[in-house]
Amino acid sequence: MTVRIENVGRAVRETEYAVRGPIVNRAQELERQGREIIYCNIGNPQSLGQRPLTWVRQALALAEYPALLESAPGAFPADVAEVAREMLRGTHGHGLGVYTDSKGLHFVRQAVADFIRRRDGVAADPEAIFLTDGASKAAQGVLHLLVSGPRDGVLIPTPQYPLYSATLTLLGAARLPYQLDEGAQWKLTRQELEATLARARAGGITPRAVVVINPGNPTGAVLGEAEVEMVLEVARANDLAVLADEVYQENVYRPGERFVSFASALARRRLDDVSLFSFHSTSKGLLGECGHRGGYVECRNVPPEVMQEFVKLQSVALCANTVGQLVTYLMVTPPRPGGPSHARWEAERREVFQSLARRAELVERGLADVPGIQCNPVAGAMYAFPRITLPPGMSDEAWCLQLLEETGICVVPGTGFGQAPGTWHFRTTILPPVDRLEQVVRRIGEFHRRVGAR
Amino acid sequence: MTVRIENVGRAVRETEYAVRGPIVNRAQELERQGREIIYCNIGNPQSLGQRPLTWVRQALALAEYPALLESAPGAFPADVAEVAREMLRGTHGHGLGVYTDSKGLHFVRQAVADFIRRRDGVAADPEAIFLTDGASKAAQGVLHLLVSGPRDGVLIPTPQYPLYSATLTLLGAARLPYQLDEGAQWKLTRQELEATLARARAGGITPRAVVVINPGNPTGAVLGEAEVEMVLEVARANDLAVLADEVYQENVYRPGERFVSFASALARRRLDDVSLFSFHSTSKGLLGECGHRGGYVECRNVPPEVMQEFVKLQSVALCANTVGQLVTYLMVTPPRPGGPSHARWEAERREVFQSLARRAELVERGLADVPGIQCNPVAGAMYAFPRITLPPGMSDEAWCLQLLEETGICVVPGTGFGQAPGTWHFRTTILPPVDRLEQVVRRIGEFHRRVGAR
Repeated sequence: MTVRIENVGRAVRETEYAVRGPIVNRAQELERQGREIIYCNIGNPQSLGQRPLTWVRQALALAEYPALLESAPGAFPADVAEVAREMLRGTHGHGLGVYTDSKGLHFVRQAVADFIRRRDGVAADPEAIFLTDGASKAAQGVLHLLVSGPRDGVLIPTPQYPLYSATLTLLGAARLPYQLDEGAQWKLTRQELEATLARARAGGITPRAVVVINPGNPTGAVLGEAEVEMVLEVARANDLAVLADEVYQENVYRPGERFVSFASALARRRLDDVSLFSFHSTSKGLLGECGHRGGYVECRNVPPEVMQEFVKLQSVALCANTVGQLVTYLMVTPPRPGGPSHARWEAERREVFQSLARRAELVERGLADVPGIQCNPVAGAMYAFPRITLPPGMSDEAWCLQLLEETGICVVPGTGFGQAPGTWHFRTTILPPVDRLEQVVRRIGEFHRRVGAR
Repeated sequence: MTVRIENVGRAVRETEYAVRGPIVNRAQELERQGREIIYCNIGNPQSLGQRPLTWVRQALALAEYPALLESAPGAFPADVAEVAREMLRGTHGHGLGVYTDSKGLHFVRQAVADFIRRRDGVAADPEAIFLTDGASKAAQGVLHLLVSGPRDGVLIPTPQYPLYSATLTLLGAARLPYQLDEGAQWKLTRQELEATLARARAGGITPRAVVVINPGNPTGAVLGEAEVEMVLEVARANDLAVLADEVYQENVYRPGERFVSFASALARRRLDDVSLFSFHSTSKGLLGECGHRGGYVECRNVPPEVMQEFVKLQSVALCANTVGQLVTYLMVTPPRPGGPSHARWEAERREVFQSLARRAELVERGLADVPGIQCNPVAGAMYAFPRITLPPGMSDEAWCLQLLEETGICVVPGTGFGQAPGTWHFRTTILPPVDRLEQVVRRIGEFHRRVGAR
């Protein structure tokens, strides 16, 4: 054959993405053989029964086929018809079939800017907002701008979401892992960031940026105001861009915790020279619209000539999909209070939120009693990342594979996210419906009592 | 600021994508100042009045909001309701909000395989088909697999669609341009391919693949069977993968010309060792659904371990958007003859096709009479790439800019696509509605009579 594996580049071959790695492939194989599998490997809420918000889907149906506004007027509440008309006007009447600006539709970017202003009390510029096919593409695009070879490095947390390690490997840049403190509920410390920077420099690497995931994936931790500000100060002192992965900003369950955006902290501390890229997504939060691939990045303190390069990168594949752009619009544009859709929208959101909060607690408590498993609070996001004690010679990968074979539960080994040497973990989502999740937690407990160590 | 332009990598900064380059930026600037602009820079049919197919949009509306199947049953033909139910079953009942397999939904890949079998009389494997956010992402992904540094090269036509040059620049690989013969209706010759290969090898570059665009963008030329087979033979003899950009396969207007797929030629000649990647899209053809970002690549004679690397690349950003995947399904799954939607679907398609054919002829003929403009037949695709004779000291970029300033017509200079030294061209789409297109052609003629040379 005229294509051979040995000609595929090393960067591609060395890239790993555990959330869809070998354990998941094995799960799919078992499923094809007729085994029932419970997928806890990926944050894909609607695949496990979460219902989409009616507000979003009604508006999309009308935007796809606007003739319904005439032919089935009774089938939609008046405010849905109104928002659909608004969205169609926003496409200059062309509808969803057209390429948009490389940055995305202007009215959506304006709505995102308004959302940021409402959330943070800080002005935002629609021209500094890029709509992307999910936040993953946004993060990949930004990293592409910031690194250009093996001497450029980016700080990423350990444990981290493997999008970051995979993208840096693909780009041939250096990964600079900083360790979150598991003993202190995955705390992020200045000392650890600075030690990581020093190690990098000693190795001849120029640190270019720091990635922070808040709320944390896979940790479930939520950063406090002081931690967010500390990261920005370290970034300023060390000439780093900040990549703030804030896709779980609506997923904070624990009373007393709240989401603090990097944009708000930047403004509060008047750090006008720290370049910030913050990511948001339609896939998480209370929408769970993963398949629609909607997301954005907001750039702050980024020179226009760098943003121009980003526009060019985006333009090569033309634009993000229009439906995902509209889902982003609908995420930041709720029905008006008093309108016909508002009560339903609120009730559906409340149900999703309360159910997620209940499941976060269920996982945290259910695993707390198992000898050999230690689980930090699931304060936010959609995952638990429990530490497991294993008998000598057993790896987390072997543990996950055996769990899958014996119970049909598919989780991802800690290796895929990074973990302190000598420790083992797994990541599970909190997403199966309550009754199944109870089963998952019970079976994991039984399994670990059998095969684990104390 | 902690991000600066001088730290952006050279590959990114050197990348160019003329279809959305400086001329287009200037057009948008003029538009914001109130000027009326006719955008002929990009193949974006629905932005210029082409209507989406009702079959596609009705089915998408139902898939977004399946409750309509109950609440507004009369609003949709029975076969649309049926195809929508089929698509929802294909998502395992989860609907459009879920991440799919990295390759895309299996039932869509199966439908694409069936489509290829019907088109070419050749079996196709759904496991070798990847659904992507438009064909652009598919081409970028495949190139990422095939080259890994400055010593790897890919043959691309001159003139070419700048996706290919841009992606190779981003990947840091060598572009190996081969010249299409403008004097022979943009013919592709073995001699030119072999000369290009020899030049590359003499320069220490290993040619890895050859890109062919058929029907041609920007040339409008349609390859004959002999040319397609010749490319495959050259690929075999020189150990090249073939990238067949076949997104305009439905856009063949000229009587006597027909589209010959690379897959069919591969099978006919039993070239079972030539690795072929063929691309198709929902953006062109008779759908023109650009904004939905649907597309696919079919791999043939590609070793499974290489496809596995492709799966991994795709998995890092999880999957293509689900709506684009469904548009791909609907593109290859027409309404059944005799069903309630069939006549309308056929009539809408016929109207689009006939109108495109008429406009192709209009551009070709309208420019033929202008002294100093030579235009090959627009046999296929959606563009003309006329050669213009310019007075000494004038470039095609200057010509395009002046055309824009004086007439509001936005076309792209030949420089963005590549052209033989000493020749100048521009690319225009054939997409404005007939009356405006007549205006465009007339004004370009008047303009060139004034500023051009003979």
